[in-house]
Amino acid sequence: MTTDTPMQLGMVGLGRMGANLVRRLMRDGHTCVVYDLDADAVAQLEQEGATPASSLKDLAGKLGRPRNIWLMLPAGVVQRTVDELTELLAPEDIVIDGGNSYYRDDIARSRQLAPHAVHYVDCGTSGGVWGLERGYCLMVGGEREAVLRLDPLLRTIAPGAGSAEPTPGRTATSGTAPDGYLHCGPSGAGHFVKMVHNGVEYGMMAAIAEGLSIIKHADAGLRDRTVDAETAPLRDPDAYAYEIDVAEVAEVWRRGSVVGSWLVDLVADALARSPGLDGFAGRVSDSGEGRWTVLAAVDESVPAPVITAALYERFASRGLGEFTGKLLSAMRGEFGGHAEKAG
Amino acid sequence: MTTDTPMQLGMVGLGRMGANLVRRLMRDGHTCVVYDLDADAVAQLEQEGATPASSLKDLAGKLGRPRNIWLMLPAGVVQRTVDELTELLAPEDIVIDGGNSYYRDDIARSRQLAPHAVHYVDCGTSGGVWGLERGYCLMVGGEREAVLRLDPLLRTIAPGAGSAEPTPGRTATSGTAPDGYLHCGPSGAGHFVKMVHNGVEYGMMAAIAEGLSIIKHADAGLRDRTVDAETAPLRDPDAYAYEIDVAEVAEVWRRGSVVGSWLVDLVADALARSPGLDGFAGRVSDSGEGRWTVLAAVDESVPAPVITAALYERFASRGLGEFTGKLLSAMRGEFGGHAEKAG
Amino acid sequence: MTTDTPMQLGMVGLGRMGANLVRRLMRDGHTCVVYDLDADAVAQLEQEGATPASSLKDLAGKLGRPRNIWLMLPAGVVQRTVDELTELLAPEDIVIDGGNSYYRDDIARSRQLAPHAVHYVDCGTSGGVWGLERGYCLMVGGEREAVLRLDPLLRTIAPGAGSAEPTPGRTATSGTAPDGYLHCGPSGAGHFVKMVHNGVEYGMMAAIAEGLSIIKHADAGLRDRTVDAETAPLRDPDAYAYEIDVAEVAEVWRRGSVVGSWLVDLVADALARSPGLDGFAGRVSDSGEGRWTVLAAVDESVPAPVITAALYERFASRGLGEFTGKLLSAMRGEFGGHAEKAG
Amino acid sequence: MTTDTPMQLGMVGLGRMGANLVRRLMRDGHTCVVYDLDADAVAQLEQEGATPASSLKDLAGKLGRPRNIWLMLPAGVVQRTVDELTELLAPEDIVIDGGNSYYRDDIARSRQLAPHAVHYVDCGTSGGVWGLERGYCLMVGGEREAVLRLDPLLRTIAPGAGSAEPTPGRTATSGTAPDGYLHCGPSGAGHFVKMVHNGVEYGMMAAIAEGLSIIKHADAGLRDRTVDAETAPLRDPDAYAYEIDVAEVAEVWRRGSVVGSWLVDLVADALARSPGLDGFAGRVSDSGEGRWTVLAAVDESVPAPVITAALYERFASRGLGEFTGKLLSAMRGEFGGHAEKAG
Repeated sequence: MTTDTPMQLGMVGLGRMGANLVRRLMRDGHTCVVYDLDADAVAQLEQEGATPASSLKDLAGKLGRPRNIWLMLPAGVVQRTVDELTELLAPEDIVIDGGNSYYRDDIARSRQLAPHAVHYVDCGTSGGVWGLERGYCLMVGGEREAVLRLDPLLRTIAPGAGSAEPTPGRTATSGTAPDGYLHCGPSGAGHFVKMVHNGVEYGMMAAIAEGLSIIKHADAGLRDRTVDAETAPLRDPDAYAYEIDVAEVAEVWRRGSVVGSWLVDLVADALARSPGLDGFAGRVSDSGEGRWTVLAAVDESVPAPVITAALYERFASRGLGEFTGKLLSAMRGEFGGHAEKAG
Repeated sequence: MTTDTPMQLGMVGLGRMGANLVRRLMRDGHTCVVYDLDADAVAQLEQEGATPASSLKDLAGKLGRPRNIWLMLPAGVVQRTVDELTELLAPEDIVIDGGNSYYRDDIARSRQLAPHAVHYVDCGTSGGVWGLERGYCLMVGGEREAVLRLDPLLRTIAPGAGSAEPTPGRTATSGTAPDGYLHCGPSGAGHFVKMVHNGVEYGMMAAIAEGLSIIKHADAGLRDRTVDAETAPLRDPDAYAYEIDVAEVAEVWRRGSVVGSWLVDLVADALARSPGLDGFAGRVSDSGEGRWTVLAAVDESVPAPVITAALYERFASRGLGEFTGKLLSAMRGEFGGHAEKAG
Repeated sequence: MTTDTPMQLGMVGLGRMGANLVRRLMRDGHTCVVYDLDADAVAQLEQEGATPASSLKDLAGKLGRPRNIWLMLPAGVVQRTVDELTELLAPEDIVIDGGNSYYRDDIARSRQLAPHAVHYVDCGTSGGVWGLERGYCLMVGGEREAVLRLDPLLRTIAPGAGSAEPTPGRTATSGTAPDGYLHCGPSGAGHFVKMVHNGVEYGMMAAIAEGLSIIKHADAGLRDRTVDAETAPLRDPDAYAYEIDVAEVAEVWRRGSVVGSWLVDLVADALARSPGLDGFAGRVSDSGEGRWTVLAAVDESVPAPVITAALYERFASRGLGEFTGKLLSAMRGEFGGHAEKAG
Repeated sequence: MTTDTPMQLGMVGLGRMGANLVRRLMRDGHTCVVYDLDADAVAQLEQEGATPASSLKDLAGKLGRPRNIWLMLPAGVVQRTVDELTELLAPEDIVIDGGNSYYRDDIARSRQLAPHAVHYVDCGTSGGVWGLERGYCLMVGGEREAVLRLDPLLRTIAPGAGSAEPTPGRTATSGTAPDGYLHCGPSGAGHFVKMVHNGVEYGMMAAIAEGLSIIKHADAGLRDRTVDAETAPLRDPDAYAYEIDVAEVAEVWRRGSVVGSWLVDLVADALARSPGLDGFAGRVSDSGEGRWTVLAAVDESVPAPVITAALYERFASRGLGEFTGKLLSAMRGEFGGHAEKAG
């Protein structure tokens, strides 16, 4: 046991993230009551030391009061879970939504629970499959007292101050940000910051991917390009006669460069495993936060061309611009008699 | 015969554009000597009243001096034609490049011809397959005297002042712009303006196509969208329950709206012919000028996000962002364990 | 009187648009009862033949039943006007919102009026200050019967079939789109199409403005550019040695070119009046529809990079990217010791 | 002395980067002959153990053969330095350009030196003011033998394998990328990769800055926004009622988050020093590589919307879109009678 102040947490949702949070908490001396629709997931964690629950009601019953219940669920099932919990909880209990809910839903849910004197805390959780070892970056919203009460749990889940060099210019001696978690503001503020975090992630990922793609295609002058009235010739093929190993480029950028980042670490790893990225077709999913970030930028009148371009690049990668393309080809056909070229 | 000052022109290149230029000129009383590698194209125009030539040399021989020779050729063969003509021409002759050459090549070619006292005029020609009837918008570069000498020819090719209402605020009484042709500046200036014209065209086309696509997809709430951890659900399907006839939208925009334009006319026509744009896959070609416009913007430090986005949208429509997409999916796989979804 | 079926319309809101709609309607034989908070505006139209009203109630009283009432109001006051009208109207009356309301409000308002059996019609109206002469392009949403009943009024307001050449490929003989108005679908569909129309307008305007700006700066090589470690030198100043008259370029593009459009007509007029665009600082407003178009694109998963870039370009023109810029300069200072250059 | 194979290097250009490279090399046991136009810079390094030179000729004379000469100069003076060195050097000497030259110049310079049997190595050097301690990421182009000969020097300058965790998926046991330097290919390949590196840097910086700006403006609902026909009202001010401390957000993102990166470290530092970023106006410079990256993307037909948006965002921050903005405002004035709002 390493934490000075062991606490008890109920975890609802034992997918990869939820299960690993439980493991990280127990490893540090906290105790957990766990529930999931999938009984195997519950049994697995029971084996690792957690207390199993067979329903939300069972979970509520097995937790000491005031309760701390963490939801780690797909966004689509959070609301019904909160609805059900409303009936089971008591004043001063805390419900934490650690998933990727839209921050506007947090505002509504905190209002829904307020009459019951149940606290609602929204917690954006970054770290992915690596969080068990590295810790998770936590962006938290809700009432100050509730967040304060959760401090020992949040501190355990977060990476801790030792996970990065201190910021040289930092003179503030208070605040938990250097420990890897931050109370960002009232309800929704945590998921708002996490939402934008993911928008930034989209932009950074796209910058890296575009750059490596430009390097990959530095051999354009070595390859034939069809030249006809429909295709611009490459004017100076000699300037594009490089065959550069992008996997090695990603690897070298990991050390000492300005673009050094966890994302570059990850792309270096992916390229080391498969230089041709076999098994990927290039159809890039998006899961909500990038879109919501764009909506926020537009509402706030803040120009966000880079983050938005990254979002649309993902849409386009999935063929969602097809009708736009057909219209463009049709216009070209109309004014220039251009036939569309075969793929 | 309607022109007051009939002239003689040699036309090299009898594709759709070249042939129609000859027809429009002859219709207005000018005479033409014509040459093309394709003897049938020459024969066709001979039948319509042009003087046929069997080679560049033959063409040069059949033209009175000083000669006016218009090249209407793919960009890739202009240089060798100019090279060959250099040997055949005499002082005061004029070579006009009416195709889509890069303006930097014009600068070089005018320098190449200068020692021979042969004038080089670059002429950006817009109008496409409709130019025979509507006339062509001409953007001209080169020495003032040479352009002035060509005035009767340019005036015939251009649409003429009657083709549009006078600009209300215009007080200038000189200048040929209201007639539909403009001497833009020294060598290359014509193709520079035409290049940017095409960049503008890319942007306008994209704006129209994106807009109609957004209208087309106003039915998003009526269709199932897979909802899982990888896909953001549509929050308010009721707001996207429209099935709007985009062909009729394009038609109504043709009258009285702010977006009224020839491009909207054309897209209305294309959609009237085939509401589903059958036969188009949405792979949009680009033929040089859009790219060069972007290069110029970057060189000049002028932000051109709209024109550039339109260019990249075409690249993406042809699958050229595939490696970028693979890198993005690979990064998502690394940090989140996300598998790429099937297409 | 030219219309075969004169009707009566109540107009609420006599700003430029509202007043001109009344004039266009009366000119064609319809009769109008008019109301505005500004009594002078009412008096002016009374002088031109309209029946004045001193309040909404007075207006309702002076209209024969079933009533047709057109609101031409700032978006911010439509709701309270609809609320007030709800008390004054009777079954089968029609309220038309001809302003720039958000289409989602239309859906709500039509539901608000439905229990009263009052019809709500949303009508996007394009044409600006020129509409009195040119007619207005109308994009209409609401119940089919209500829209049908308004046909004589809509037909008068719209530009009419003669305002543009028939679309060559059009074989449909029914439909009102060629007359310049279109019933797009149920409640909100009219403003949805108008919203996207304005998004397209943003994109087209930006394409034209960027292009003319690139042409304006074709003199970059003639002007000194500070060259230091912070500024990239222009590699080939000779290629940017043009001083091109952008006003004349806009004028020539009006005739026969692919970019020919009403917007090019307008920019030619603005440049003819003031080549330096004196009196403009370049801070470009946006008034809602562009933003809403982007929100729709994101919700629908339709990539709209061009329209969105145009919106952000407007934001940036008003200095709304300032904090972003400060962060960028601060980062440059951190890693490179770069001081920000003075403006 | 820590290197096993001490070498001798001549350094031309003792600015921050050049001087620190010399220090890092000497610290590891290499010896340096140094030259700069600024005698004080030479004297300073002499004091630290370097051999001073008073001219390029003096430097060439003081180096043992075959010589290794590193140029760390502004891009604008590299060519004349190479020209001068051509006369002073002997077969098998190596000239390294460690600055930010355009890779196309490298190709030309390597051809210029080839007849003298002098090798030319281009070396992109990333690391900024922190490189002395962290080491520099090196991207190298040129002939294999030359690069191989420089290995001990490059190894010292680079951060070394210990500067980052090994890439888990990496199975390759050869290659120098894990040591922080990479031979990317023939002449120009090093600067090509460094150029794109900087393009990626632009994109990543912009993503971070846009995101933090969106968070900063999450208070939009708390502030008045002028509402008139020219300005869209904020529909849901309650959703933008956060006052979030962006400095703390940057700090928390440093630990465990997906966006963790050196750039986030730096922005956290800048915000810790000055939360309001006082002293910055937000006019962001660009110094060539970002532009060249865009030119390469266009030439290669690779869509790069994110990197390009980042570049244009910098242009716009310096007011370079002003004429575009004026044209947009002028068009709005023409069709809508909209006056431009004061700043």
